[in-house]
Amino acid sequence: MGLAISTNLALRHVAVRRALEALSLDALIVTAPANIRYLTNHAGSAGTLVATADAMHLLIDFRYQEAVRLLQSSPAACPSLRVWQVGGSYEEALLDCLAAIAVGTVGFEAGHLTVARHEWLVRTAAARGLTLSFRSTERVVEQARMVKDEAEIATLRESARRLTAVAAAAFDLIRPGVSERTIAARIEGAIRDAGYERPAFDTIVASGPNAALPHYRAGDRLLEAGDLVVLDFGGVLDGYCSDLTRTVAVAPPSADAHRVFNAVREAQQAAIDVVKPGVAATDVDRAARRVLEGHGLGEAFGHGTGHGLGLDVHEEPRLTRPRADMASVPLEPGMVFTIEPGAYLPGWGGVRIEDDVLVTAHGCDVLTSVQYALIPDR
Amino acid sequence: MGLAISTNLALRHVAVRRALEALSLDALIVTAPANIRYLTNHAGSAGTLVATADAMHLLIDFRYQEAVRLLQSSPAACPSLRVWQVGGSYEEALLDCLAAIAVGTVGFEAGHLTVARHEWLVRTAAARGLTLSFRSTERVVEQARMVKDEAEIATLRESARRLTAVAAAAFDLIRPGVSERTIAARIEGAIRDAGYERPAFDTIVASGPNAALPHYRAGDRLLEAGDLVVLDFGGVLDGYCSDLTRTVAVAPPSADAHRVFNAVREAQQAAIDVVKPGVAATDVDRAARRVLEGHGLGEAFGHGTGHGLGLDVHEEPRLTRPRADMASVPLEPGMVFTIEPGAYLPGWGGVRIEDDVLVTAHGCDVLTSVQYALIPDR
Repeated sequence: MGLAISTNLALRHVAVRRALEALSLDALIVTAPANIRYLTNHAGSAGTLVATADAMHLLIDFRYQEAVRLLQSSPAACPSLRVWQVGGSYEEALLDCLAAIAVGTVGFEAGHLTVARHEWLVRTAAARGLTLSFRSTERVVEQARMVKDEAEIATLRESARRLTAVAAAAFDLIRPGVSERTIAARIEGAIRDAGYERPAFDTIVASGPNAALPHYRAGDRLLEAGDLVVLDFGGVLDGYCSDLTRTVAVAPPSADAHRVFNAVREAQQAAIDVVKPGVAATDVDRAARRVLEGHGLGEAFGHGTGHGLGLDVHEEPRLTRPRADMASVPLEPGMVFTIEPGAYLPGWGGVRIEDDVLVTAHGCDVLTSVQYALIPDR
Repeated sequence: MGLAISTNLALRHVAVRRALEALSLDALIVTAPANIRYLTNHAGSAGTLVATADAMHLLIDFRYQEAVRLLQSSPAACPSLRVWQVGGSYEEALLDCLAAIAVGTVGFEAGHLTVARHEWLVRTAAARGLTLSFRSTERVVEQARMVKDEAEIATLRESARRLTAVAAAAFDLIRPGVSERTIAARIEGAIRDAGYERPAFDTIVASGPNAALPHYRAGDRLLEAGDLVVLDFGGVLDGYCSDLTRTVAVAPPSADAHRVFNAVREAQQAAIDVVKPGVAATDVDRAARRVLEGHGLGEAFGHGTGHGLGLDVHEEPRLTRPRADMASVPLEPGMVFTIEPGAYLPGWGGVRIEDDVLVTAHGCDVLTSVQYALIPDR
């Protein structure tokens, strides 16, 4: 069922416990669902985890008790798990747990915990006379998640591979008179048929002028001859996300369509070609951007070149322009991310081409495998 | 396209501006996507809004410029909108905006803003010498969203109505040997066919012992004679969510199945029967709970009785047991929420029955319309 085996969970716990020690924390409150799943295999939409040097305290409400009991009697059981049943609110239960296990300095995930929940915890702990000190942390678990282990890589590889059949189902419907929504429905049906548990995000089918809107979804517009159509979709397999974009033409494509398509494809390949361990994530972005600038399409490429893939469809590393507020990450073997430059021309349309890649010892593997042709072979 | 017309947006702005005045705030930073959509019709996955007494400042990045330009030339244009283009990070752009419009005391949504973003804003504003004071607020926009206007009610009514056809498609597949996943795929196909933009949440098809797991999704299990099957699904129509659960049996149902089913259905009707303006949300929960307790199923009903529906699939009001940390809301005409008691018996299975209701002047309208039979007519 795609869950990490107990020994892999134990390795992840080691990484988090090392971070606790380095940060002089007695415990870390984990509230981001993907982080909780990564450390415990608990995949519910609710739950709070308190990681300490000797236990993983999982707070769950009634709805998940039975699921966690089954999990703990399987080979994917979480080592050192202690389950706390939440009767009322998660915040109350969290304070009860922290008081019972008698910790003093407690980190929390500042990038996930809201100000309201934080204020309540600080205020209520004080009112109860608990000597707790709450400390902001960032990226403790995310840091570990960025480099995938072998089981995760195998799942991500399979998740990417299965998109080939989904793309074929979509290409099959590209002709005048078919609506964007019909194609999106076909894609999502093919995602299910391929054995994914669900789409990784809202499927995008953006045709003609809609292709100029990078985050358009799918509407009632009918395809017309000469349209460019951006198809962007992905699936979640055993928790792990894949993400692919192809841009195809409803025949006959214009000379401009060929020109923009070729420029984006060249930019994408340039970015893929620079990926190897030690290269900065921002350098991958630069490689794509430089090609598009060379074709006079720099202004038309307004977003970043890619994002990490894993339990979340958008995670670290981020492949963007250098930013003052974000340290650039050097690539490491085991990182998995998208490479997806695009060019968007308001009123005319747009092109985006996206694949998923895995950083290897000396370069990268492209995990997705779908033809690039503007008019796909059927 | 289901967007609020400009005059409705203007009314929503009045409500928010009244709250600003009551809280002595010069501006409110709105970061929750559904709240931004509610106030501006901007439905992108990114964006930050700064609401002031005379303008709605919408900060958006490159990806949404064209979509907002089109919106502003339509009848759904947002009144008093000022668009700010975000080049780098949203936080930097937010401080630039706040500095440019020269506000002093600024509220933020404490239930949505993370501690990390808040810390960055406070620290960076101070470093830049800006005299900004940030204040926690809660539920300013949510309060307004809880009571729907006529256009929202019409959309919610239609969103609920279309689930009838989706349920029929699901019932059609209930027989031994069909997998949960196949039924989930059929449901999601029917959701698309009914014209919804997407499912409102991950479809649940929980059969046999899986029906005892209230938040199970759908797996490889094949239906067997005598199973109970919990089917829980919904669609998003023009932004507004519907949510329905039916529990059906693969013939022949056991005597216990009949007994638990009848108890849950009786509890659900008891809850529906008490809904009217002025009744506390917790009293609706109590009505359902009392019936289940009378049948010896109090322990088997571990979750709340319902939740509000609107732009979010889980919003206010919450219909739960009285809780120390949450004021109970008195029902008002125009509120829309689910009523969904259940009973879960580990190892055996479970039953949940859910409809969507609208509070009217003297009682409520049940918006969903699907047969309740344990063995549905086909």
